Formats: sequence, C-alpha cells, structure tokens
Amino acid sequence: MKCNDTIAAISTPPGEGGIAVVRMSGTSSLSIIRKVFRGKNPIQKNSKGQVYHGWIVEKDEPIDEVVLTLFHSPHSYTGEDVIEVSCHGGLFISRRILEVLIQYGARPAEPGEFTQRAFFNGKMDLTQAEAVADLIRAKTESARRVAIYELEGHLSGRLQKIREDLIKICSLLEVELDFGEEDIMFVSRKEIKHLLIKTRGELQHFVDSYRRGKVCREGIRMVIAGRPNVGKSSLLNGLVERERAIVTEIPGTTRDTVEDVLDIEGFLFTVTDTAGIRETQDPIEREGVRRTEKVLDISDLVLLVFDGSESLNREDEMIVRRVKEMRKPVIVLINKIDLKQQINIHKLKKWFPDEEVLRISALKKEHVSRLVQTLKGTAISGGIPHEGEVLITRARHKNCILHAIELIKKAEASLRKSMSQEFIVMDIRGALDVLGEMIGKTVTDDILNQIFSDFCVGK
Amino acid sequence: MKCNDTIAAISTPPGEGGIAVVRMSGTSSLSIIRKVFRGKNPIQKNSKGQVYHGWIVEKDEPIDEVVLTLFHSPHSYTGEDVIEVSCHGGLFISRRILEVLIQYGARPAEPGEFTQRAFFNGKMDLTQAEAVADLIRAKTESARRVAIYELEGHLSGRLQKIREDLIKICSLLEVELDFGEEDIMFVSRKEIKHLLIKTRGELQHFVDSYRRGKVCREGIRMVIAGRPNVGKSSLLNGLVERERAIVTEIPGTTRDTVEDVLDIEGFLFTVTDTAGIRETQDPIEREGVRRTEKVLDISDLVLLVFDGSESLNREDEMIVRRVKEMRKPVIVLINKIDLKQQINIHKLKKWFPDEEVLRISALKKEHVSRLVQTLKGTAISGGIPHEGEVLITRARHKNCILHAIELIKKAEASLRKSMSQEFIVMDIRGALDVLGEMIGKTVTDDILNQIFSDFCVGK
Repeated sequence: MKCNDTIAAISTPPGEGGIAVVRMSGTSSLSIIRKVFRGKNPIQKNSKGQVYHGWIVEKDEPIDEVVLTLFHSPHSYTGEDVIEVSCHGGLFISRRILEVLIQYGARPAEPGEFTQRAFFNGKMDLTQAEAVADLIRAKTESARRVAIYELEGHLSGRLQKIREDLIKICSLLEVELDFGEEDIMFVSRKEIKHLLIKTRGELQHFVDSYRRGKVCREGIRMVIAGRPNVGKSSLLNGLVERERAIVTEIPGTTRDTVEDVLDIEGFLFTVTDTAGIRETQDPIEREGVRRTEKVLDISDLVLLVFDGSESLNREDEMIVRRVKEMRKPVIVLINKIDLKQQINIHKLKKWFPDEEVLRISALKKEHVSRLVQTLKGTAISGGIPHEGEVLITRARHKNCILHAIELIKKAEASLRKSMSQEFIVMDIRGALDVLGEMIGKTVTDDILNQIFSDFCVGK
Repeated sequence: MKCNDTIAAISTPPGEGGIAVVRMSGTSSLSIIRKVFRGKNPIQKNSKGQVYHGWIVEKDEPIDEVVLTLFHSPHSYTGEDVIEVSCHGGLFISRRILEVLIQYGARPAEPGEFTQRAFFNGKMDLTQAEAVADLIRAKTESARRVAIYELEGHLSGRLQKIREDLIKICSLLEVELDFGEEDIMFVSRKEIKHLLIKTRGELQHFVDSYRRGKVCREGIRMVIAGRPNVGKSSLLNGLVERERAIVTEIPGTTRDTVEDVLDIEGFLFTVTDTAGIRETQDPIEREGVRRTEKVLDISDLVLLVFDGSESLNREDEMIVRRVKEMRKPVIVLINKIDLKQQINIHKLKKWFPDEEVLRISALKKEHVSRLVQTLKGTAISGGIPHEGEVLITRARHKNCILHAIELIKKAEASLRKSMSQEFIVMDIRGALDVLGEMIGKTVTDDILNQIFSDFCVGK
C-alpha cells in the first residue's frame, strides 16, 4: 500500500517543556519544508540523516527558531521522507508550526499513522508496531522489557521460523498432490507428524507465557478485601510508603482515594482498597458493596485481610464465601499481630488450605516486606523476563496462536487417519494464515484500524 | 564562567507521546554517549550536526531504540557539546535513558540550566534567555510574537545601540577629565545634552510600551462583577462558546467553575465570574465577598453587569461604589435587553460618564460580538505587535529602564548646572550599568538564579 499524501503531527506529549517535536512524513515533506524554512544552509536531498538550524516562517513572519532533522526515504521511521521539526516546547508554538505545515500541504496525522506507514512500508511487522505502543505506555521495567524484546523482533523471528517449517511441509505435500495419481511420498508421514508436534509444542509454549507476559505488560490488579476496620487502608498506606509509586506522577493518571499504583520490583500493581463487603439493606451501602464486587471481579489477586485481635465473625465468613466464589488467587493476611490475638487460625487455615497465610502488623510495619516478597512470588512467578526471553502479552496474539494450535491438531488428526494430503494441507495453510495475521502478513483492515487507533497521534 | 560538568534532563513535557527527547550538554557528552550507544556508525567528533540511529544499552541490556542528534561545540544551543537522544515517548522509558546517562557520569540538570549555559557561553543575552521561557509559556499569538521578536534580539539590539551612544559620551568626557587642568572640551555640551534627551526619549518609549507588552505576554485578567442574577454566568458562557478556549486543553491548567480562559483575536483573557458583591453579616457569604474583592484587586479590567429589566437598587449602588474605589478600567454592560427595560440609564451614565456602556442579551446572544470588539479595543489598544515591533513585557525590564532614565535625568541636571564632567560621567556610567544588567552584561547571581529558576527542567 502506497500512501500519496504527507502527514504531520505534534509527536511530543502536550504541555510545557524545553523541546517539542513536530513530525512530517510523505513524498511532499521536502517540498513543504523548503517553503516554510529559512536557514543558513539549503535543504538537500541526501541519503544520510541531516540537521539544519534556522527558522520556520509563515510568509515572512518568523514563527519559531528550530532544528530540523531530515531522514530520507527509505532510511526513516516510516520508510518515507521524514522531517522532524524540533521547536521550543510550548503547546501553542508547536501547534502554530503544525498549522503552517498543514497550510502548505500536509494533513493532520491520525493516531498511530506514522507507525502504520512504517508497517505498510515493511519497516516493521505488526507485533513490532504493537510493541511501539506498549513501549510508550510502559510504566515499569517489566513492561519496558517485554516491549523492547518484541520491538527487537524476537517474537516475530520465532514465528517466522515456525511458519517456514510449516510452509516446507505444505510445499512437499503439494508436490505429492501434483503427482497425485502416482502415489509418491516426498516426505515421510513420520517426519510430518514429528514436525507438527514440535511446532505445536512451540506454540503452546507461547500460550503458556501469556499469563506472565500480560502481568509484565499490564501489571496486576490487586484488591484489598475484608470487613470494616481490619486495617485495609493502613495496609495500602504501608505498601505505598515502602514502594515508589512512580506512576502517580504521570499527568492524567487517575488517582482517587481508594486506588494506588505501585512499582514492586519492576512490576505494576494497581491496588484497590474496598468499601468492605457486607450484606445490607441500606441502598447507599448496597451500592458500595456492588462496586466492591465489580472490583473483585476484574482483579487478578485478592489480598484478604482479617483482624487478628478479634474472633472471626459472620461478616468474615460472608466475605470468605464471596471471595471463594470468585475463584481468584488469594493471599490471606492476619493483621494487627501487635495486639493480643483472638483469631481462630485453625478455622482460617481450614477455609484456605492451599493459600499462603501471612501474619503482619500494617500499623507497626511488621512483616510488610515479607508480604511484598509473597506478592512478587504469587503474582509474578518467573520474575522480570531475562534477556531475549519472549513472552506474549496481548490477547490478540494468544487467540491467534490458540487458533493455529487447533488447526495443527486437526492436521495431526487427518494424518493419523491417513486422510488425503489435501486435508492436511488445508489445515496447515489455515494455521499459516492465522500466524500471518498475527505478524501482519495477512491481516484485515478492521484489525489494523483497531490496533493503530489505540496509538497516540504523532507516533 | 566555564561549566565543567555534564548535565542531562528530559526536555519534552511529561506524559505519553510519540517521541521524548533526553538532552545532555557538557564536555563529557561524547564520552558518555559512546559508552551507552550501540549503532551501525561510530560516533565522531565533527563540526556539523550529525544523526545516528541505534540503541541505548545498559551494560548489554537494550534499553530503547533511539535517534541521536549531535551538536558539536560551539555550534549548539548551549555552546557546549550537546547530544539529544530521541527515544520512544513514554515517561518511564525516557527516565530510564536519563538514569543510564547519569549512571555514566552526567548529572541531572537544574531548571533552565541549558539556557543558562547558553547565556554564559555568549549564545544569547539575558533578554533572549527570558524570551525562551516566554515562548514556551506562550498561549496566544500575541504572546508568541513578542517573545519571538525578543528572541530574535530586537530588544537587546536597540539597547546595545543606546549603550554605545552613552559609552561614546562617557569616553569623550573621560578624555576631557584626563586633560582636566587644561579645560579642553572634546565634545560640545549641546551635543551631549541632545544625545541624552534623545536616549531618554527612546528609553521612555520602551517604558510606555510596557502596558501593551504585558498584555501581550500575560494576557488580561478580566472580572465579571454585578449583583446576583444579572446574568454574569450566561455572559461568561456566551463568551466561552464564541471564542475558542484553547488554553483549557493544556494539561495542568486550572479550570474551575468560575474561571475561564479565552483567546480573543490572539490575546489571552482570563475571565473570572464572581460570587457577587453585597454587604452581609453571614460569615460564609462574607468569605465569598472577600474573595471577590481579592479578584477585583488583581484584575486588569472589570466587566460590570446590570439587569436592564430591573431598576437599579441599593445593591447595584454598593457594587458601583466598590468598583470605582478600585480605579480599574470598567466596561458597563446592561444585560437582558430582550426583556422589558426598567433600568434608569440616565443614572447609570452619570455614574460612568467616561466609560463605554453596552446593551446586550447574554442569553439570546445579542450584541455579544460587539462586546468582544469593545474588549479588544479597551484592553488592547494597538493590537498584536507588527513585525519587528519591540515591546517590553517584563517588570524587570521596565524597572531597569526607569532606573536608567532617572540617572540620565540626573546627568542632564548636572549638565545644566555646568558641573564637572565627573558627575555627568558617574550618572551615565550608572545608567550603562542598569542597562547592562537588563541584557545580562553586568548582573548578579541572585538575578540570574531568579530568572532561570522560572524555567522548566530540560530547557
């Protein structure tokens, strides 16, 4: 797909800063910039990246003093002629420059359109394009790392290798088909079977990595549950204090009284304190309970807190029942161990025979670090990916791979039943298609639109 | 002043975007970047701006794919070796890159430190450095334009010319002093007088431009006053609807229910709706009145609204008295002209003999455009500065120039009284010093700290 128009957008975040960058890409980039740029040196078509210092002007009015960086096709992000105008970092001034570029023939870029062009021009495949969006959104080291490995092409490289193997089988089987009457076998059925099983194993390995990959990319939604006054808020405060809550510094991050974001050893934890679950007739309180259940529903992990200084009561029992119904991973916390203990631990362990039970004092900050270690262990078995380790992080990828596995299983079944090559080839071709869809070899506009609309403008 | 260390900062605004730029300046820039950058081409010391594509690595771990732009001393913003690392535009990833640079020897830059170095290295004078900060903060075309003209050096150019004239007089008078005994006159007293008057006139011209310059740079604080129910809020809504309220889109801009920001033909209007002024004993209402008076106090213009469909009453009278006490420019508005009119216009005109009285219907949007025209006229006599027109925009500049004028007047007086050259020279030297302080030739650390601490980090 060839794009004929030239797009432009402010590529840096909105706000005040030292520098803003307005980016332009397309066949007219050079002719547009020549009309609006006055510098000491004339702008030249050259194969290397170039830097020019001068002014953006509108007719003869100076708009801003800028530095231009030129990336000539195909040696650019998009593969087209790209010009980055580095101007003074205010929102008004960068908008004015964008206005001037548009006035002289560029059009405002859609979200992700630069990356979309990079994809169309073969500068990156679809998983790499997705990794760009993930990298920008990354809030922790784990998120950065999985995105970088994907951007480096590790995931698509492996998939490419798998696809090559499958293509090889297909080709051989198709040659057999051409010689259909003669019943010649170009490849042993055992060899095909072996290769299909191996491929399926590799794909399954990716599927298995999804839970951990998702945690790396999106973090963990943890909810702190328990009846009122067991110390849920002090627990949250204790965690926030101990770990650096980096994400809350980012403008636009929602931060209300009951949600906090923690970076625990490179992983993002979104922690929600709840209103406490209890059976009630009061409509306002019922609304609180409804919300709590909604939060529980979307959480990845429940931190269930009990008051060690009191006996377990009907309310505790009710909450335990609800949480167990949800079938979420649970860490059981007995809080207030600095006070005289009344809780029936035996009963608690009977309720949670397989779960970890920790005893802490949120107020006195006793054993909070042990909780952090447990959180890490429970939530992130495996830790931050090591160099070159490839995890899949997106539901889209998981679904493509699951679909491919199903088709390979079908091919295996056809093979077992000694069915004609056609059936085997059909399913392997199908698997190739879905894997091709994953990396963008064969992909519909709908999927592309969905992926790129998720980007920010200017990328 | 020579800076020996190398500074680094994220120069783009915080948040998510396509691109973030981490900037580094100092003698070790090149050696630091060589340790953390892996690209196809080796980084070279060269006189021209250069672009490199590759990866920032921490030991062997890839951190991000980046584009480096190198500006070699003295051909850079700061005059030192400057490297701009253009990375993926997330906050986490840009922070990681900054961390890596710091780990290898850079130190985090203070606010405005890059520009401060540009100033120390003679790349710009102090008024130009101030213009950089103004440009970044600019929210309207008028603010952008006055900042750009100052950045181009128009203001400092004029001042430089004035200083040269004064230096010439001083030198001649000082030569006379050297020949003191011989009573030789190297320059006629008439000529000196003429030059001092001319200089003073030019300086006065700058002082006179301050009000307009301030309006261009900072905009106009307008307050809408009037007793309850005269239609203050509908008026504000009408204005907001008609003019694009660009500034409210900028993250971090405070926007509460009673303050709005308008861009009226290139000028910034901060409009505050008031709680209504009335004499009251109720403590809560008294607090509201106190705040209203505070807003009135810092406003540049009062839009005083009356209800045309009702008679003027004691409350109106009280507000008129308060507003007149403030001695602020006032535009008088008779609202609700779509209803049957009861107001005594004669009485109103007697209260405001010199003020413009406008009749509108905020609700029906009648004559709101006429109000906009009047606002422009009243507030911004002269309009947006034309090309090359120099206005002073900062109180610091105004105070320096006023001080210089005083000293020149003293020199003129000494001249009139035929006092010895020494006295004349002393005052002219004094004027040269304060003008030098304005452009940064002679300036204390306190003033510099004050100016640069007002910058954002990364500029």
